[in-house]
Amino acid sequence: MTTSHRSPRRSERSRRAILDAARDLVVEHGYAKVGIEAIATRAGVGKQTIYRWWPSKGAVVFEAVRALSEDSDGEITLPDTGDLEADLKLVLRATAAEFADPAFDALIRGLTTEMAHDRELAAAYEEHTAALEDAKRQRLRSGQRAGQLSPDADLDLVLELLYAPLFRRWLLRTGPLTADFADRLVEAALRAFAPAAEVSAP
Amino acid sequence: MTTSHRSPRRSERSRRAILDAARDLVVEHGYAKVGIEAIATRAGVGKQTIYRWWPSKGAVVFEAVRALSEDSDGEITLPDTGDLEADLKLVLRATAAEFADPAFDALIRGLTTEMAHDRELAAAYEEHTAALEDAKRQRLRSGQRAGQLSPDADLDLVLELLYAPLFRRWLLRTGPLTADFADRLVEAALRAFAPAAEVSAP
Repeated sequence: MTTSHRSPRRSERSRRAILDAARDLVVEHGYAKVGIEAIATRAGVGKQTIYRWWPSKGAVVFEAVRALSEDSDGEITLPDTGDLEADLKLVLRATAAEFADPAFDALIRGLTTEMAHDRELAAAYEEHTAALEDAKRQRLRSGQRAGQLSPDADLDLVLELLYAPLFRRWLLRTGPLTADFADRLVEAALRAFAPAAEVSAP
Repeated sequence: MTTSHRSPRRSERSRRAILDAARDLVVEHGYAKVGIEAIATRAGVGKQTIYRWWPSKGAVVFEAVRALSEDSDGEITLPDTGDLEADLKLVLRATAAEFADPAFDALIRGLTTEMAHDRELAAAYEEHTAALEDAKRQRLRSGQRAGQLSPDADLDLVLELLYAPLFRRWLLRTGPLTADFADRLVEAALRAFAPAAEVSAP
């Protein structure tokens, strides 16, 4: 039940336009140089519209980043085709490509700096990261049920083996973020936690 | 052939005293608050002695860090008892303990900040890191020769699986840096690159 004079559809269109504008502007000019004013102009809305929905520039930009990993219902889910290796490769290749993309890089480095002095933003980011981790853990658990991962695999450790090397290469620029690297990480992590081979009785 | 009036032994003693003083002071007061003057006073030498050997405070502190991983000949080598798993656990436990130690943490975070605007220091650190990586790769190669690691294991990938999760936990404070975590990383990496089981002919 909405009491707003705007239709939900028109609101959603404005919201999208604002997030797209925020993302594009940060990519073009860098986080520090973009203001709410510029985002409003680019999105074709008034500043008040932005402030009605978000308390700060950091909050808008953060939501622009979060929107990248949500489906149309605002849910985070990982693909589950029944083939854990294929699904993880898809996801890790996408993560590697994101990290390797200068546009994404500009967004994340800008946000990271902002989080250092914006506790609310840091908390929101933390929450988003936790939701992402949950979705990943769920996909691993389903693989475990399908017998593609050892029943006593430590799923958090599997996630660290998959993501920490990507993260380190990105942060320290110690190696290329390629689909091949993503594939080799998935293969190594799955070998490390493969279910024990069936042993037939003598 | 030394033309100095100091004996090499006395020089070495001063060098040690300076490095210890630099390390202790940074740990006690933080990198930014420690000057060459204070290091000289604590080490019981003149400022000129320090400047004769090092161009800057960053260089002294960096050498203090480097000294932690060198043996008495200034060489970096990893233990090689013939048991790759045991040796790696020893090394990774030590790394985890170092990362978990607030003193080491203060040293490294101070240096990292300094490197952002001291290219010479950054280059020296890079070189040190490369030497460390070489030593680690050598140990893995010897394990490979001993049949404890698959002959076609990608040793750089093995190192990333071992160290990236430690690094990420340290940087982002996402988990405890314990001996148990170190052990589980070593076990996972070795399982991922275990030599193929011997298959007997039918």
